[in-house]
Amino acid sequence: VPRKSAPIERTLQCSLEDLYKGTTKKMKISRDVIDASGKSTTVEEILTIEIKPGWKKGTKITFPEKGNEQRGVIPADLVFIVDEKPHGVFKRDGNDLVVTQKISLVEALTGYTAQLTTIDGRNLTVTTNSIISPTYEEVIKGEGMPIPKEPSKRGNLRIKFNIKFPSRLTSEQKTGIKRLLTSS
Amino acid sequence: VPRKSAPIERTLQCSLEDLYKGTTKKMKISRDVIDASGKSTTVEEILTIEIKPGWKKGTKITFPEKGNEQRGVIPADLVFIVDEKPHGVFKRDGNDLVVTQKISLVEALTGYTAQLTTIDGRNLTVTTNSIISPTYEEVIKGEGMPIPKEPSKRGNLRIKFNIKFPSRLTSEQKTGIKRLLTSS
Repeated sequence: VPRKSAPIERTLQCSLEDLYKGTTKKMKISRDVIDASGKSTTVEEILTIEIKPGWKKGTKITFPEKGNEQRGVIPADLVFIVDEKPHGVFKRDGNDLVVTQKISLVEALTGYTAQLTTIDGRNLTVTTNSIISPTYEEVIKGEGMPIPKEPSKRGNLRIKFNIKFPSRLTSEQKTGIKRLLTSS
Repeated sequence: VPRKSAPIERTLQCSLEDLYKGTTKKMKISRDVIDASGKSTTVEEILTIEIKPGWKKGTKITFPEKGNEQRGVIPADLVFIVDEKPHGVFKRDGNDLVVTQKISLVEALTGYTAQLTTIDGRNLTVTTNSIISPTYEEVIKGEGMPIPKEPSKRGNLRIKFNIKFPSRLTSEQKTGIKRLLTSS
């Protein structure tokens, strides 16, 4: 039985956009092949990878026996492993997307409207009327990542809030706040 | 050369009070010993462990050859490994102690005085006059854990704040807050 070389693993860098919308990646590889006369030559090949919407970091795509050909050995499998590049706005948490909005204390207490652009470029307006405490999360159902196995469903978009407090208040402001917020 | 048995490890549960103040623990063990005639008997022994102030989880105390005696084998070492029981009020973070205070939004904005009891039973009054944002920490130097290697120094006590926001506000309150806090 001829032995088989150990698999060759390569990282496949994907943006969150790639993993959200799906895309096709063409990877150029160069490998040694043995022709009919037994001579080894290096050839270039293009491998096509269909990134499916919702794929996660760690997903493996295997091209069987795409390693170098050597006499008496089965060529190695070539394995691409998906890695997810950090996104400037959204963080992925499983099937959810998480975005943090910096808001003022006044916005936290009196209402806030977030203007977001989704990964596929749509504008999303989300108004929060409840009071936004430091641990509050606004959940928008179905605006997260696609779920590869359930194409009709998607994860959620979760908005977290970083509440900027005033750095100082006058004693008049403090008195006013006490009067306004202390239940009598 | 006679072989030696592998060390016996035992967990030594310590309260944060024990590790803060130091204490003496007496551990009763029972072990087999071989007398002059070669007969094995089980005896009980009391081992004394001096817990030094500031000891950390993972500290090991070794009693050499306190395992069972067997003919032709060097008895195992008995090793106690310090573990720290969770404390109801303070969390340890290295040499620091961390305590979380639940405060109202009014207290966060207008000033707050924490009344704390230290692990050795002293009353500590800490007044914060600056505005307490959700990430604010009040640091009290030298009120943390003792440092075993530097008996003259101690870690810090850090007060974190869990700010309770009002669950609802009337539109009059919201208007008032906007007027008070929006810089004109």
